[in-house]
Amino acid sequence: MTQPRVVVVGGGFGGLEVARRLAGAPCELVLIDKRNFHLFQPLLYQVAGAALAPGDISEPIRGLLAGQANAQVMLGEVTAVDLARRALHIEGVGDRRSLTYDHLVLAAGLRSSWFGHDAQWAPFAPGLKDLDDALEIRRRVLLAFEEAEWTDDPRVRQALLTFVVVGGGPTGVELAGALNEIACKSLPKDFHRIDTRTARVLLVEAGPDLLPPYDARLRASARAQLAALGVQVRTGTKVVAIDGDGVDLLTDSGTERVASRTVLWAAGLRAVSLVDSLDVPKDRVGRVEVLPDLSVPGHPEVFVIGDLALARQPTGGVVPGVAQGAVQGGRHVARILIKALRAPDGSTETEGSRPAFVYKDKGSMATIGRSMAVAEIGRARLSGRVAWSLWLTIHLFFLIGFRNRVVVLMQWAWSYLTWERNSRLIRGRERRRDPGAAP
Amino acid sequence: MTQPRVVVVGGGFGGLEVARRLAGAPCELVLIDKRNFHLFQPLLYQVAGAALAPGDISEPIRGLLAGQANAQVMLGEVTAVDLARRALHIEGVGDRRSLTYDHLVLAAGLRSSWFGHDAQWAPFAPGLKDLDDALEIRRRVLLAFEEAEWTDDPRVRQALLTFVVVGGGPTGVELAGALNEIACKSLPKDFHRIDTRTARVLLVEAGPDLLPPYDARLRASARAQLAALGVQVRTGTKVVAIDGDGVDLLTDSGTERVASRTVLWAAGLRAVSLVDSLDVPKDRVGRVEVLPDLSVPGHPEVFVIGDLALARQPTGGVVPGVAQGAVQGGRHVARILIKALRAPDGSTETEGSRPAFVYKDKGSMATIGRSMAVAEIGRARLSGRVAWSLWLTIHLFFLIGFRNRVVVLMQWAWSYLTWERNSRLIRGRERRRDPGAAP
Repeated sequence: MTQPRVVVVGGGFGGLEVARRLAGAPCELVLIDKRNFHLFQPLLYQVAGAALAPGDISEPIRGLLAGQANAQVMLGEVTAVDLARRALHIEGVGDRRSLTYDHLVLAAGLRSSWFGHDAQWAPFAPGLKDLDDALEIRRRVLLAFEEAEWTDDPRVRQALLTFVVVGGGPTGVELAGALNEIACKSLPKDFHRIDTRTARVLLVEAGPDLLPPYDARLRASARAQLAALGVQVRTGTKVVAIDGDGVDLLTDSGTERVASRTVLWAAGLRAVSLVDSLDVPKDRVGRVEVLPDLSVPGHPEVFVIGDLALARQPTGGVVPGVAQGAVQGGRHVARILIKALRAPDGSTETEGSRPAFVYKDKGSMATIGRSMAVAEIGRARLSGRVAWSLWLTIHLFFLIGFRNRVVVLMQWAWSYLTWERNSRLIRGRERRRDPGAAP
Repeated sequence: MTQPRVVVVGGGFGGLEVARRLAGAPCELVLIDKRNFHLFQPLLYQVAGAALAPGDISEPIRGLLAGQANAQVMLGEVTAVDLARRALHIEGVGDRRSLTYDHLVLAAGLRSSWFGHDAQWAPFAPGLKDLDDALEIRRRVLLAFEEAEWTDDPRVRQALLTFVVVGGGPTGVELAGALNEIACKSLPKDFHRIDTRTARVLLVEAGPDLLPPYDARLRASARAQLAALGVQVRTGTKVVAIDGDGVDLLTDSGTERVASRTVLWAAGLRAVSLVDSLDVPKDRVGRVEVLPDLSVPGHPEVFVIGDLALARQPTGGVVPGVAQGAVQGGRHVARILIKALRAPDGSTETEGSRPAFVYKDKGSMATIGRSMAVAEIGRARLSGRVAWSLWLTIHLFFLIGFRNRVVVLMQWAWSYLTWERNSRLIRGRERRRDPGAAP
């Protein structure tokens, strides 16, 4: 008799948690990801900022599941889900295929979204969701300094040395801090014609404050720490246009043009495209509104976890789109699946008889620069050096793979001593073509 | 009074040596490279083989010259040299420009060449000359295993698990050894549907033997070591066609078709395109025939070093295109330049009065796999574990940058203990399209 097939889509924090917890369970487990590696996303901005190398925060999924006899890994992109036939459509390596499932866990995450201006803005303001994004940002930032070094036009040089980060959440705050550190600490000695410390970093947020979910005191602290670094924070400011020469900002007092050759996008997110094929309740960014057990209404055999799910909590609010939310959701779903797989008749419980998922907030933190961070853990509100040390320790501890931990620790120790950024390689064959530059 | 300008084209072993030796010399030094990093080319095949990460063998040029007050670094590609006007045409970041020089050192190296079939063969058989090449090879090799895992067609699977390396020089031998190690040692546990150890690695060489410049006993030893690993060596075999499905081989006994989805090119090289603009004597692959002092005939202010130069030796033979040849040539030219720059009248000596460059052979070595290598040092002929240990030590010692040495040592130690390849990331947005596959 063949075993039931559990298909997990996405090898991020949530999907990997499900796959690992199902080791030894009586099922055929298939984990599908369009990448062959798990990405430690909380440190992605450090790759964008040339502090860590891609391999430091990635671990091949096959290696992570190599010892798990019931697990298969498939490299491919799930383009659609057929809930009625219990089948997935997959763009695999080399071919298209479909794959049936008995149980399905969707953990494919979100992607960048430019508020309805994807086609116009994305080319000029890359997001930061995967490794290729991070390397593209790194390339643009480093090339901007290279070009500034050699141009003879002071206006062009100023635009090249102006960096705009759109979005004041943790990613935007971390990117702005990293850009500032690159310009003021890592690069000055490398350039002999320009003073890289004159670079201007602008952090633009439409809402009234940075890091909205944090405590008010921490929000103020983050702002003060950024200001101390020299980052210009503009809250209550909307970006209304982005092109190759800069951005148009809109505030209560009017519009302003900022000339910039490097704009980074940390503002909008949207569900991956596979959910377009799902005829289930979704919110405005495409997250699936799941039942309390994290299953899809009417389909107890399908679960959605991680930031692709809109999971309301019994206490009010929703599960935040952070690593902990995905890991805990994965653990919850794995428990339900193990019970179902071990049931004598192989039957699936109805969602009503299953336990509801309760998210346990273990705290959140964002780093701003060397010795600067903010953190909320339980009732504790930390900022500055204490928060930063905690940030380092926790991220290192949770980094997947022993070797990565050692290498990242070494990289950080080296950077701490020297301010050097070890991954300042400009790669990629194509050269940036500035549509705004004269032909 | 402005100082004379020395322009060095290329930040490889030769160019970097010239630049560093001119620290403190009374000149304005400009080093131009189309990449922003120096590449430790002897270990490039380890990036292609997923054993090292790109950053492990690269070091930003700006960082290497940061402390040198008279040095400028320029990111750009030199497209032509105007010897009469003493000017370079440069495709820089963001613009085109020209730059005049008083002294010029060309150290831009060679690129891959497919024996007049560049347009047809290059897409199917990537060469290994820069970091992008290495990552493309890594991507193709890892994707071939991924595709083999999921195909249901045994013929396709066999073609996917057949790897052809064209060219039996050091690069070809090293690539073949690395491919074999990946298939037999690193990947078996990762794949559950295929046995990666059944992969076939073919090393094809048109000449009668591998590693032609080496001693006959070492050539035989290299062949025996490869055979022991399971690599199929085909000497006296010409590649007459390459497409998306495989290669056509021609031997004395006729032609043979080998179905393979992954063909790697380590056979032909040609001068970089900037020499097309030079009206000076060149050999058939475009290397510049330099005078004994390494200057260009009729232009005592222009030198060519490294593998872009065809430098005949007083003892007969030419300087080999290896790192040592470039470094020693760079040192020689730097000495001539320092003397000229310090001459009271600023005059350039004629090439006749300058010392001739004499290459001192410090030995050569090629590695084949774990504990397998061949080496010639002076009169010593080493093979097996002794040669391999020596290879490790010397490469680690000469790797530029202290941090890199430590990281690479760690990577190697880790791989030695676990057989794991730490850089098995498949990156890049575009997916491989096999023109030979059914639509």
